[in-house]
Parts: sequence; C-alpha cells; structure tokens
Amino acid sequence: VVAGRRDVRRFDPDRTLPEATLRQILTLAILAPSGYNLQPWRFLIVRSNKNLQKLRRCAFGQPQLADAAVAIIVLAYQNPHLTHLDALIAMRRAEVGMTDSDTGEFRARASRTLDKLADRRTWALRWTLLATGTLLLAAQSMGVSSLLVDNFDEEATRAGFGIPDDHSIGGFVALGFAIEEDPFAGRFGLDEVCYEEHFGQPWAPGEP
Amino acid sequence: VVAGRRDVRRFDPDRTLPEATLRQILTLAILAPSGYNLQPWRFLIVRSNKNLQKLRRCAFGQPQLADAAVAIIVLAYQNPHLTHLDALIAMRRAEVGMTDSDTGEFRARASRTLDKLADRRTWALRWTLLATGTLLLAAQSMGVSSLLVDNFDEEATRAGFGIPDDHSIGGFVALGFAIEEDPFAGRFGLDEVCYEEHFGQPWAPGEP
Repeated sequence: VVAGRRDVRRFDPDRTLPEATLRQILTLAILAPSGYNLQPWRFLIVRSNKNLQKLRRCAFGQPQLADAAVAIIVLAYQNPHLTHLDALIAMRRAEVGMTDSDTGEFRARASRTLDKLADRRTWALRWTLLATGTLLLAAQSMGVSSLLVDNFDEEATRAGFGIPDDHSIGGFVALGFAIEEDPFAGRFGLDEVCYEEHFGQPWAPGEP
Repeated sequence: VVAGRRDVRRFDPDRTLPEATLRQILTLAILAPSGYNLQPWRFLIVRSNKNLQKLRRCAFGQPQLADAAVAIIVLAYQNPHLTHLDALIAMRRAEVGMTDSDTGEFRARASRTLDKLADRRTWALRWTLLATGTLLLAAQSMGVSSLLVDNFDEEATRAGFGIPDDHSIGGFVALGFAIEEDPFAGRFGLDEVCYEEHFGQPWAPGEP
C-alpha cells in the first residue's frame, strides 16, 4: 500500500466517492494514536461544487481540488483537554474499566500536561498529521487516490469556512479516482536523511 | 495493520531490533509524499544506552525510551529548497526523464513556493509527521511495536543531540518489542470529529 501510492495529477470529475467508502476511510484514520487519546483531529468535508471551487481559490487555484470527489480540510484542535476530557474519560471507563482513582489521576495528568505544553498548536498538528498519514494509506488500500495540498491562504480558508482560531489548518486532502497520477520521482537514500546518535553523524549500519 | 496497532506501555529491554528491519521500516517511511518531493524529514537514530537515557531525560523521564531497542528523533528540515534542489532535480531527471525546460520550470516553481510560504516550519512538520504516520504503520506491519513521544524539552534535546535551528523536532519514536501494550481506549464517533461544508455544521450522511 505504501509503495503503491502516488499523488493525483488529475481526478476523474465524473466519479463520486460512495458515502460508505468515505466513512470507512475516516473510521480507519481516527484509529491513529494521539497524546492521552485526546484525538485533536477534525475533518471538514467539502463536496458541493461551489465549496470545492472556493477551496480551490483558497489553495491558489490548485486544479485537483475542483475535480476531486471530496476534499477534506484537516484541522488540528488545540483545546481538547478543555472540552472533551469528560467524554474521553467516560469512553475510557467503558473500554478499559478504569477505577475512580485511575480516572482522577488520568484527568489530572492530561490536564496538567496539556496546560504546560510550550506549543499546543504543534502538539495538535503532530497528531492530526499522523492521522492524515493513516488516512492517505487507508484511502489507497480501498482504491481511492489522494493528494495532500500544502499551499493555501490560511486567512481566506478560515474566513471562507468559518474555522475558529483554536483550530489550526493541517492541509487539504483531495480524494477521488485518478485519471492521471504523478510518476514516482525517486527518494533520497537513507544515508542522506538519517543520522546516528548525534545530528550530522552518519548512520553506520551495524551487523544485519 | 491500522486497527491492530497499540502504543507500547513497556518494551522488552532485552530484545534488539535487527538492522535490516530498521532499514526496511525507514525505507517504507520515506516513500511518503512531500511537497515538490522535497522530503524534509530527517531521522536521528538513537540506540546507545547512554543516549537513550539522555533522550529519556529530555522527555521528562518517559520510561519507554530507556527500554526501547531504538529511538528516533524525528526532525523536520525547513530549507531543503536551498540545499537539496540540485540533487532532487538530478534524481527526478533520472526517474521521470524531464526535459531541460521542465527542469527549469520545476526549479523556479519549487523555489518560489517555498520562499513564499508564510510558515515553513509548519510546512516541514506537516510532511515529516505524515511520514512518521507511515513509519509507525510500517513498523506494525513488520511486527515491531512503537510509541510516539510528544512531550519533551525542546531546548535540552537540541543541546543534547546537536540539532540546528532550521530543523524542528517532530517528536521521538520509540521502537522495539512490547511486553505490554496500552488497551484500546476507544474513539469519539465520526459525528463528533467531522463537519460538512462549513465548520460546526454536522456531517449529514448521504445515500450509502
């Protein structure tokens, strides 16, 4: 699945994505892990023609967005510890069977850690992009092609889709069926992108 | 693979990770896509006892880091367009067979886009965390357990491992073989984390 995935160059504008397939892709995506299981990802699903065109304008005209069956604005919510801790703990009690004292300790630890984070925006983006990686592979495993759009006007997107300040925009995922995909463009060798024990020190392969 | 993965609570301290397995995991991780294929991820592999202990201290004592077979400091490099564009284009010519004029256009477009990005740190983190998602699933598919550590002292990590300012720290991945894994703690329903067409508007499932 990993090796077979390519970015989409051109979507088939006439094919729609069955609702059940979209649900399955998202159901897999949210199985990704997250800190304290706080699940900071939010997915804003865009598929009306009008809004796909609007989203395309937010992405400086990126053509694939207009022909995608569905686009998802991936959002990273920075304050789940303020709003979702009760629901999370109720779910955790049901799934794991926590005791009252475990519950109290979990609540205190999660709140304290999130409150003390130097950069909660990055924290939320971290887990959200991790889930987005899962989403792209889940789509691929179901025969659905994708593209992650990384260049967009943040302010225009916020204004156009009503996104509040405590949600960062991780990117736009376009989903659909490809007429044309990008060719494999190669990858740098592991020696180029890996270090060992200290930054700048080459990875010295040990015994296999 | 997605549904079967759990965070590690306790690693087997006596089992090492074969070098070939680590290579295969990283080889799959770097097949992740990236903007202009600039591959901003860097992986700093830590496995000496001394450095695993140091990394554990950087992560406020997170116990799994000491017993992991390997830990990877995941880095997001913000300036690949300044240093890697020539190598990238050479690779692209070999893989895809670009013409001279395609090459010139690609170079100009990639440089311009990266130069103009409002937030290149987020850009680099986006693709790096996406690849980290692939890495965790690649490990899982090979029977290797993992944990992504999201709470660490950034300055101590930079100082301790010589990480320069143009590389952001995406997180620490601990890899190894689990003695104990976290139980599944549940997930919010899709209705809780999905919106449709506009932020706050519930996802109204269409025809299946």
